[in-house]
Amino acid sequence: MGRFFPVGLWCAGGSKLMAGFAANFVGVATEFATWYYKTIDGTDRSGLSVVYRPHSMMTFETNQVQGVGAIKEKLISLPFQKLNHQISTLDAHPSGESGSIIVLITGQLLIDDNEHPQKYSQCFHLVPEGGTYYVLNDIFRLIYG
Amino acid sequence: MGRFFPVGLWCAGGSKLMAGFAANFVGVATEFATWYYKTIDGTDRSGLSVVYRPHSMMTFETNQVQGVGAIKEKLISLPFQKLNHQISTLDAHPSGESGSIIVLITGQLLIDDNEHPQKYSQCFHLVPEGGTYYVLNDIFRLIYG
Repeated sequence: MGRFFPVGLWCAGGSKLMAGFAANFVGVATEFATWYYKTIDGTDRSGLSVVYRPHSMMTFETNQVQGVGAIKEKLISLPFQKLNHQISTLDAHPSGESGSIIVLITGQLLIDDNEHPQKYSQCFHLVPEGGTYYVLNDIFRLIYG
Repeated sequence: MGRFFPVGLWCAGGSKLMAGFAANFVGVATEFATWYYKTIDGTDRSGLSVVYRPHSMMTFETNQVQGVGAIKEKLISLPFQKLNHQISTLDAHPSGESGSIIVLITGQLLIDDNEHPQKYSQCFHLVPEGGTYYVLNDIFRLIYG
């Protein structure tokens, strides 16, 4: 388990860095994404629920859900036994004075015993809260063709 | 030219709709994206600069720029004569009480006289301002392979 979750000792200091593309935001986003994919690729996807809040929103393909319970249920019910995400690109921007961070990830995803990875794109909006971050927005799309 | 830019009569009413996945956000995002790609695919890309502000940030592949002038210069200097974006998926979420909107687009892009489109993903963070929206964050990545 990295320092991002659930230790919560990490301090964002986001708004001070708004004027530039601070490496800090990329560091937070990378740490978050590493934890997120390790958890969703692991044996207990329900562990992801700690990063959502009652007003958090998730779009997974054409399905949209809101709130910790609905998001957790959706993640657990995904009809895949094995997942393996590999990040190809990760870009992060500060998204305002609040210290929030917008993250765009593109990558490849191996599903169950398929030999060929599926490309995907995922966008997260991370919001600071008490020295750590939660996920306000999570949009996932497979890239077909 | 649609109603999104530059007429500015459109009223967001974003925060009232925060509790649900209001169609409104998708409508704004669709209208914005339609205008954006029509403009960047057109003969004068500099017209895009009206949607950025001094603190706006753009990542185009590995290049990061900030501010209207730098973003405009980057857009104009892209080494492509002809572009043709086709949206495959567009998802939009309200991104907080401020009425901001997070948009994730996946699509295909024909560059110059290439016969085969290139897949891409693009994330926008749209922020309400005086009855219209500006782009705070713009992250673009081609999807290779």
